[in-house]
Amino acid sequence: MDSTLSPLARPFPSLPDIAGVTLRVARARYKDWDRADLTLIELAEGSAVAGVFTRNVCCSSEVELGREQVRLGRARAVVVNAGNSNAFTGYRGREAVEAIMAQVAAHYGCQPSDVFVSSTGVIGVPLPKDKATAGVAAALAAPRTSWEEAALTIGTTDTFAKGAGASAMLGAVRIELAGIVKGSGMIAPDMATMLGYIATDAAVAPAFLQDMLSKANAESFSCVTVDGDTSTSDTVLLLATGQADNRPLESWDSPGADAFYAALRQVCLELAQLVVRDGEGASKFIAIRVTGAESDASARRIGLAVANSPLVKTAIAGEDANWGRVVMAVGKAGEPADRDKLSIGFGGIWAARDGVPLADYDEAPVAAHLKGGEVSVEIDLGLGDGRATVWTCDLTHGYISINADYRS
Amino acid sequence: MDSTLSPLARPFPSLPDIAGVTLRVARARYKDWDRADLTLIELAEGSAVAGVFTRNVCCSSEVELGREQVRLGRARAVVVNAGNSNAFTGYRGREAVEAIMAQVAAHYGCQPSDVFVSSTGVIGVPLPKDKATAGVAAALAAPRTSWEEAALTIGTTDTFAKGAGASAMLGAVRIELAGIVKGSGMIAPDMATMLGYIATDAAVAPAFLQDMLSKANAESFSCVTVDGDTSTSDTVLLLATGQADNRPLESWDSPGADAFYAALRQVCLELAQLVVRDGEGASKFIAIRVTGAESDASARRIGLAVANSPLVKTAIAGEDANWGRVVMAVGKAGEPADRDKLSIGFGGIWAARDGVPLADYDEAPVAAHLKGGEVSVEIDLGLGDGRATVWTCDLTHGYISINADYRS
Repeated sequence: MDSTLSPLARPFPSLPDIAGVTLRVARARYKDWDRADLTLIELAEGSAVAGVFTRNVCCSSEVELGREQVRLGRARAVVVNAGNSNAFTGYRGREAVEAIMAQVAAHYGCQPSDVFVSSTGVIGVPLPKDKATAGVAAALAAPRTSWEEAALTIGTTDTFAKGAGASAMLGAVRIELAGIVKGSGMIAPDMATMLGYIATDAAVAPAFLQDMLSKANAESFSCVTVDGDTSTSDTVLLLATGQADNRPLESWDSPGADAFYAALRQVCLELAQLVVRDGEGASKFIAIRVTGAESDASARRIGLAVANSPLVKTAIAGEDANWGRVVMAVGKAGEPADRDKLSIGFGGIWAARDGVPLADYDEAPVAAHLKGGEVSVEIDLGLGDGRATVWTCDLTHGYISINADYRS
Repeated sequence: MDSTLSPLARPFPSLPDIAGVTLRVARARYKDWDRADLTLIELAEGSAVAGVFTRNVCCSSEVELGREQVRLGRARAVVVNAGNSNAFTGYRGREAVEAIMAQVAAHYGCQPSDVFVSSTGVIGVPLPKDKATAGVAAALAAPRTSWEEAALTIGTTDTFAKGAGASAMLGAVRIELAGIVKGSGMIAPDMATMLGYIATDAAVAPAFLQDMLSKANAESFSCVTVDGDTSTSDTVLLLATGQADNRPLESWDSPGADAFYAALRQVCLELAQLVVRDGEGASKFIAIRVTGAESDASARRIGLAVANSPLVKTAIAGEDANWGRVVMAVGKAGEPADRDKLSIGFGGIWAARDGVPLADYDEAPVAAHLKGGEVSVEIDLGLGDGRATVWTCDLTHGYISINADYRS
């Protein structure tokens, strides 16, 4: 973990144990550091898995393999390496991943395809197979540990441990969800990785688990951005041990499916927002609320165009209610917009409505809102019912310092 | 003009007078400053015009009107206001533009649609009609001035005057081209504007003039980016007085058309690169050369994805040969790419070939290359014959200071 805590950091929450999940960590020493950097998530036999992965076409072997494995719907263990992303490392990188999968499979007596591997850190350096296998052996023999310890261990340049939990009643059965995530934009000195792992004791059929994760992802992890740069390793896995005594969820019609989804969505949203709160150099947490778009998808694309605009992000860093830059970013999004129906506000106060600045616009309360650590931008397109909220952080000297001032 | 000269600035070139073109400037005092801020380009009767405009849907009235006017193919005058972009100002903004058009048309005895107006500067403040009409009256009575003076007058936060010229032989007839441009990214404290005006004494049919400008634009102004933010006012006009004694160019088959196009393309390219050289906070001029893509258009989109990546731009600012970030940006471009065929280099030296880092990669000459002010990044996709070059600048503390530290 980085020494300078993000000003937007949140304390690690109290998370429940998840029946059928055992966490262990070890020191593989992927870098010259004295900290645990290998995490092992052991899952009870019969656990289901769903996953979402980066769309970057230059992804790592871990992502390529994981995408295939997740189709089988079964997981027995997850290994997360921190300090080396193993991306752009060709066949040697792939060999290290396959060695880890074989080693863990032999230990648990499962298929290698039941063992998921993620890696995060420096790019272009093949994951050292000897360090990996020694680290895995140490983890397999390690005592069980906490979600917070696991969250710290999967982190690289993160400045704080990130976790979220929720519970839901499926009929008379209470189920638990606990998740951890790492990431703070594309990570200096090399390549970013947003990795997330969410476990539940609920019994859920793999295909429906994937449906729910894909839907929750679209409303959470896919609605945050730090710098618009897409990692080569992004992975979120949802692991369901089925140890709770609920009737298995098989479709949206299953009793309790809506309650489970609401809890899952909440955990995903909290984890996604925690990544933004640890955005490189972030000093403000920004919610961009888009309404009146032609569709929800259009609203989300407009929100992301605004969230990724360097000029909007620097204006907010400067506590400047520069709604003109928001207009510019809306206009460049490539989505339907009508300048003369467009309204822009900050902190719930409109600065411009229907294409013109408000004559009685009072900047004082807006200026006060922008001085805080939590900022909102409202955009109404005046075209339809489409809406979306996107979260991002501001662009500061801290981002430049982290990414330009230090050599890798 | 800003007080801190860009380290990448170039001296203003010696530009020819263009027969049929008269330049005048005046002080409209759109801001509280003591400098000329209104430029009038007077054109001989019978002049042809072509134009390319921003695709931002939240564009200014000037852009909306200009797009319609350019279809008529005729121009008698151009008025450029600096200090107020007149964007997002509703009907009052439009009235001011129409007043200028009517005033100039009355003076020259032409149609209002023969008078083009551009504005650049603060957004959301209607262009003051009284200042505009007084400024236009002063300009109409002013003595003729130079291209350099006009280039200074259209500038706002630009740190140096930007111009380029070329000549061509159309058969036995020598024709001249002279152009000026303003812009330095999206311009603090408000909204950007890249404005360009190129004049020639050649006789060219308006439709063909537009063909050539559109083609040249695609290879020049559309291949540069400072921060990926798209102005609401971008405009480039090509003005042809027809005072040279050439046989009018009417199509690509006209004798001399290729020579004229080559000269036009050269002027557009030089002007476009000058905008990058004045990019906000720029300390390095970066050429991104993409080869082996599936098509030229795909190569250009990949080049722009790399050029707009904050992580690539900050790495180059830090003189860090961080090819992993280039891989990431290629992968996120949404274009065909195969990680295992991808090669990345700097300054003509490959760091990674066919998806793996080169074993004998010597970083010393690359590090020396990155210390200079002119940097190149080479990307070979290994897929086809598509190629493109895109130009950008690095992302530095200077950009943050210009856009975040000062309040508007």
